[in-house]
Amino acid sequence: MTYAKKRVLVTGGLGFMGFNLVRALQRTDARVRVLSRSWPPLPGNVESTLGGVAFFHGDIRDPAVVEEAVSGCDVIFHLAGKSGPAASNASPLEDLDVNSRGLLTLLDACRSLSAGVKIVFPSSRLVYGSSDKQPTNESAPTAPLSAYGIHKWSAEQYLLLYQRLYGLRVTILRVTNPYGPFQRPEQNRYGVVNWFIHQAMHDQPLTVYGEGAQLRDYIHIDDVVDAFLVAGTASEADGKIFNVGSGHGISFLEMAELIVRASRRGSIQHVEWPPDAAVVETGDFVADTSFIAERLGWKAKVPIESGVADVIARYAQLDLAAHPPQGC
Amino acid sequence: MTYAKKRVLVTGGLGFMGFNLVRALQRTDARVRVLSRSWPPLPGNVESTLGGVAFFHGDIRDPAVVEEAVSGCDVIFHLAGKSGPAASNASPLEDLDVNSRGLLTLLDACRSLSAGVKIVFPSSRLVYGSSDKQPTNESAPTAPLSAYGIHKWSAEQYLLLYQRLYGLRVTILRVTNPYGPFQRPEQNRYGVVNWFIHQAMHDQPLTVYGEGAQLRDYIHIDDVVDAFLVAGTASEADGKIFNVGSGHGISFLEMAELIVRASRRGSIQHVEWPPDAAVVETGDFVADTSFIAERLGWKAKVPIESGVADVIARYAQLDLAAHPPQGC
Repeated sequence: MTYAKKRVLVTGGLGFMGFNLVRALQRTDARVRVLSRSWPPLPGNVESTLGGVAFFHGDIRDPAVVEEAVSGCDVIFHLAGKSGPAASNASPLEDLDVNSRGLLTLLDACRSLSAGVKIVFPSSRLVYGSSDKQPTNESAPTAPLSAYGIHKWSAEQYLLLYQRLYGLRVTILRVTNPYGPFQRPEQNRYGVVNWFIHQAMHDQPLTVYGEGAQLRDYIHIDDVVDAFLVAGTASEADGKIFNVGSGHGISFLEMAELIVRASRRGSIQHVEWPPDAAVVETGDFVADTSFIAERLGWKAKVPIESGVADVIARYAQLDLAAHPPQGC
Repeated sequence: MTYAKKRVLVTGGLGFMGFNLVRALQRTDARVRVLSRSWPPLPGNVESTLGGVAFFHGDIRDPAVVEEAVSGCDVIFHLAGKSGPAASNASPLEDLDVNSRGLLTLLDACRSLSAGVKIVFPSSRLVYGSSDKQPTNESAPTAPLSAYGIHKWSAEQYLLLYQRLYGLRVTILRVTNPYGPFQRPEQNRYGVVNWFIHQAMHDQPLTVYGEGAQLRDYIHIDDVVDAFLVAGTASEADGKIFNVGSGHGISFLEMAELIVRASRRGSIQHVEWPPDAAVVETGDFVADTSFIAERLGWKAKVPIESGVADVIARYAQLDLAAHPPQGC
């Protein structure tokens, strides 16, 4: 199956992952729908960036707009939700409401309206909590350190349950640390690479907690989008959970240094771990991506050096220093 | 620590588990509080059964009544919630709201009002889903077959998270299939042994799905209450998850036959598995209870034969056939 003529819904389609995915889908000849709370999607010329997309303006927890948006869909990428482990611990009831009730609202709409629909969902490396050895594969124990991680895990289980009960087809992608263009500025703190690039471009210090020795698996959003597109069409992905990462670990500090070097701006500033960050810190994390490679033939392609250079180049084009972004 | 003079809250204290626990606590000289939506607690003489208990009438999702109830507590047994895997799959949003939002409301109240409080929570064997080999210990994979099981797992994780974040002390008991007196009649279907005893006493058929060969681990409520009381005082239980079961497996059919034999009434009727029950059926389950035995010295004591005979004797006393129960 390809995406040509398929009705494809992206919930949260104006967020960081969502907007990158929507742009990729526009190149496939799919009939793209977006469900989003945000409006307008971008400052300036909406038509040029979202031309041809059917836009549903509303909240993922509102059954009426959700039913309208999913009706007749072939594939749904459910990216709407609230991000951030520290934020979720500060407001667990809000995280529960948006992420858990939101997904169940979507699933109930699909159950009654779109039997057989394929749903692809971004879970997170944060379902694992702290892992003893790296790389981590999909059968490692799950012990999240945040309400966000708990709700990602329960979301995975809802999806698997609805496949079992009602014949929906689901694929879960446990994404590591994505970065890339089109991160919304108000969400920048949830994508640390993007945030650091933003800080460097403004010649601000890049704040590293402690030594910054913890390994991370940073992945360019183009690679994540590729994984979503493959998962959305491959029946071999049905009912499966896959890690989606670069498969390579570099330290937090190395990543920050790379950005300072590539942008020729900013500087590294070490500070003590703040308590709300320390308590959700997982230690090293590197994804074992052999399962998705074997089963779907997917592998990350963008090396972090060129990925970071790409984002810096785009930021520079936007002349951020003069015109801070207002929605892209 | 003993319970004497301790302020102890039982949420859901008029439910099956809760009411049995409250009666046991009344014998310990604890200052017992009950938070419950149900009122009046029992028909007839309330004073004689709940004398000395401070009653908070309200919903576990209402922060105002929850804050009032937890204020100054030393130990909280959080038994309020909605039961039943098949029911949860029919209404997952309701299960989410009562069980997940309810617990987070309680935890947030404890966080701001009662730092250091001990919370004991009944989880369920249903967090495991289907297990390949029996008995099942606490490190077996968790893959629930119902929204109820998913929300029990996330509840466990909330509790562990709040211990980690805020210094609450929590113990989680994964209870198998409890039975015993004081099951509320409107909830009888969730406790199959009690339901079968009720049916037999009314000379009704006991409906066994399929062959009834699946092994179950039935446990008398007195044993469960003992486990709660031990967990509530033992610091060795803090931050731990324990199976609470008899440790013995008998088949569903054997249990039904035992009830017919002991009550000298009723009969076995085999029927096809209804779809909503088949989909949540886990197959055999027997709890490995060695962890709680080693760590807390707890072990189930009531054999199923005498346990069932005890419940039948109590039902007979109540002269159920003439006066169907209205709240006990």
